Amino acid sequence: MAVAELAGERRNETAVKAAIAALAAKFGNRLVTSQAVREQHGNSLTWIPNQPPDAVAFPQSAEDVQDAVRICGQHKVPVIPYGTGTSLEGHINAPQGGVSIDFRDMNRVLSVHAEDLDCVVQPGVTRKQLNEYLRDQGLFFPIDPGADASIGGMTATRASGTNAVRYGTMKDNVLALKVVLANGEIITTSSRAKKSSAGYDLTRLFVGSEGTLGVITEITVKLHGIPEQIAGGICPFPSVEAACNATITTIQSGIPVARIELLDEAQVKACNAFSKLDLPETPMLFLEFHGTEAGVAEQSARFGEIAADLGGGPFKWTVNAEERTKLWQARHDAYWAVVRLRPGAKAFATDVCVPLSRLAECVTETQRDIAEHNLIAPIVGHVGDGNFHTSVLVDMDDPAEVAATKAFSERLVRRALAMEGTCTGEHGVGQGKMKYLAAEHGEALSTMRAIKRALDPEDLMNPGKIVAF
Amino acid sequence: MAVAELAGERRNETAVKAAIAALAAKFGNRLVTSQAVREQHGNSLTWIPNQPPDAVAFPQSAEDVQDAVRICGQHKVPVIPYGTGTSLEGHINAPQGGVSIDFRDMNRVLSVHAEDLDCVVQPGVTRKQLNEYLRDQGLFFPIDPGADASIGGMTATRASGTNAVRYGTMKDNVLALKVVLANGEIITTSSRAKKSSAGYDLTRLFVGSEGTLGVITEITVKLHGIPEQIAGGICPFPSVEAACNATITTIQSGIPVARIELLDEAQVKACNAFSKLDLPETPMLFLEFHGTEAGVAEQSARFGEIAADLGGGPFKWTVNAEERTKLWQARHDAYWAVVRLRPGAKAFATDVCVPLSRLAECVTETQRDIAEHNLIAPIVGHVGDGNFHTSVLVDMDDPAEVAATKAFSERLVRRALAMEGTCTGEHGVGQGKMKYLAAEHGEALSTMRAIKRALDPEDLMNPGKIVAF
Repeated sequence: MAVAELAGERRNETAVKAAIAALAAKFGNRLVTSQAVREQHGNSLTWIPNQPPDAVAFPQSAEDVQDAVRICGQHKVPVIPYGTGTSLEGHINAPQGGVSIDFRDMNRVLSVHAEDLDCVVQPGVTRKQLNEYLRDQGLFFPIDPGADASIGGMTATRASGTNAVRYGTMKDNVLALKVVLANGEIITTSSRAKKSSAGYDLTRLFVGSEGTLGVITEITVKLHGIPEQIAGGICPFPSVEAACNATITTIQSGIPVARIELLDEAQVKACNAFSKLDLPETPMLFLEFHGTEAGVAEQSARFGEIAADLGGGPFKWTVNAEERTKLWQARHDAYWAVVRLRPGAKAFATDVCVPLSRLAECVTETQRDIAEHNLIAPIVGHVGDGNFHTSVLVDMDDPAEVAATKAFSERLVRRALAMEGTCTGEHGVGQGKMKYLAAEHGEALSTMRAIKRALDPEDLMNPGKIVAF
Repeated sequence: MAVAELAGERRNETAVKAAIAALAAKFGNRLVTSQAVREQHGNSLTWIPNQPPDAVAFPQSAEDVQDAVRICGQHKVPVIPYGTGTSLEGHINAPQGGVSIDFRDMNRVLSVHAEDLDCVVQPGVTRKQLNEYLRDQGLFFPIDPGADASIGGMTATRASGTNAVRYGTMKDNVLALKVVLANGEIITTSSRAKKSSAGYDLTRLFVGSEGTLGVITEITVKLHGIPEQIAGGICPFPSVEAACNATITTIQSGIPVARIELLDEAQVKACNAFSKLDLPETPMLFLEFHGTEAGVAEQSARFGEIAADLGGGPFKWTVNAEERTKLWQARHDAYWAVVRLRPGAKAFATDVCVPLSRLAECVTETQRDIAEHNLIAPIVGHVGDGNFHTSVLVDMDDPAEVAATKAFSERLVRRALAMEGTCTGEHGVGQGKMKYLAAEHGEALSTMRAIKRALDPEDLMNPGKIVAF
């Protein structure tokens, strides 16, 4: 993808200079324009080219953010929120230039309400930092997208990950937000009450809006008690279909599985090589159960029966933390095992989600596609949600290979959409998936655009992401 | 409250006549203008006065709804969606006149996807009808607001009820919607995939929008497997505080309680009289646990210990369906027991929700307020969510009493807001709670208004509800 494909033109250079001068006067050395820092804030984790902002501001409060948004607004300069930079779809790029708002210094847990099972954090708090902070109180924040992302970024992209099957995604775990709007006003989207019918659900409108409707400056998230007991296990299956059917039956039976992850044959092979394991090279499910001692034992036993009925097994499981980590090692190392398959190649991450009933079909068709096109692309799936990924290893210097990978990615999305699915289960739209939204949403995309225009009439909030203005 | 307080002026009479003529040509005898039918469609369940529409249309398809919305749009005549008429806040009134869209004839379950645990229904399907339909497949739809409301109406008001503590509210159980917008376009807000990060969350924007942004014509809802075992029980407590603390500890402990309902002393007394019971006249919790046989036994035993630690008990529970119904009889009859306290009076329903940590304080302050003002107003709470109601029995012919009740209701809302709560946990805003939204949302109300104006620039979608245009 050439930079030209990535929407938008740079804004007026004189205006940008004026905005930077005004920001520098306000932020002092917390406004940085060095080439290195700017490039670090243009997306670089993926195949999407780096598009650095003109400057990076490091606010320390919602009022600082408000000032930055107001100054940028006066000069019609874009504002791009930045968490930890783990985005996979170009969310933090600055295709039209502008100012990156880096939440590095807004990383405090503001309050924990143990009785209400919620806490209030600044956007720069990362999920590991939060869980570290909460541990002594016997509480945890369940969303785990893999990377140690910031809560602000996870909110903005509607992140989820391995245990969404039980605890939901960010949309289910954010109670309220403080947001600086394009007009410079600060709003609070909801109270801390567990539920409300008092008007439009602004909280969930901003969750997943990727900074295009405003800048999130405070997040109230739900917490959970650390489970009394955690059981972890792994189970081989004769086919992807059998593994998916075991997943369906598990969920239908009301077994509250906390994680249920699929690794396909290619991924298991890669893990055996990388982590020096001797797993059977066949599709495998990795499971985790949370509950009481008796509860996880019962859940595990029931899952074992379901697996056996479908030709899977043996199901090995344990409640011993160390052994659990060992059993799960292949899953933990999955990403690095893939990268090692082809040193020097870039991993081209994909992310689709389909109804569970279509998952086996979607995965096996994708495997066939991978084989037909000689791609190196093991599959890992959060199968309880019908969500799966493959990381295609691409030599970015070979244009034919890059083109073939993009074509594969496009076929994958079309396949998922044809199966009543979505072009992204959890990575978000950013720049990379904008081109699929018309096919996915049809006329509803106009509704999204109408909302964008109503809340950000000058297209200054992370422009060139989600909806073209 | 005089009709004048209920926002808006009637639209142009000539335009209304023209719209009705065009609708009659299209709908034939499915367009009704008789006084009786019109009045039946103006809200009448509550203290809010009846404001009938000019006509009632009975569509049979999304395209019928589209036609009705287009015709009304051409003539700038309001459109008011109507489910089963169980609204408590004037949602279905027609303060500016217009056409009520009654979903009586759109009451089919369109498809059930057992493997995906979802189904697609028309808006007129009621929750009891849906559960009847699903029973043979071992599935159920969990949201239970008490009344046999339509799924369309429940979606529009973001309904919840007794088992939201475990299964969430409508916002958590609606996967996708088909909506006719003010501009006459039909959109689909999402796919059937369990999760997605593909753009703005239009589904949840429409859930709870009370028909003010468009007319819902199809709903995809999540389903659950019917639990293997259901245990029900009741437990007296020495105080509201002890009952609330038991609730907090239960939830903190990760016990997945399915229902946890509080009846205060006054409500228990009313139930003893009405249902001829001999319950201890002290605050009581009514509980339900869903799970395996061993699971519900463990949950019940653990709750019993928690209750005992807080001075509550004995906790009586059973898995026998008939005995369970008997134990729960007071809760089932709660509404009728209250109404019987003062024959001829109207029940003035309230509905606030606060963080759990503030619930005991909010309930006891409210009890003191009730006592001080000599109101008859027993309290029932969905305490797992921090949500509670009282139905004040009012003689609507006594203006002083009506005024006192309104003043009480207003104090209750202010009290909840001061405790970081919301003016409505589940009944919705309608006409009745509009006046509290500025206090609850502050500047965010302007954001709601901006969205309303962007999607319904002529203010034709259920005008005079939620946000004043």
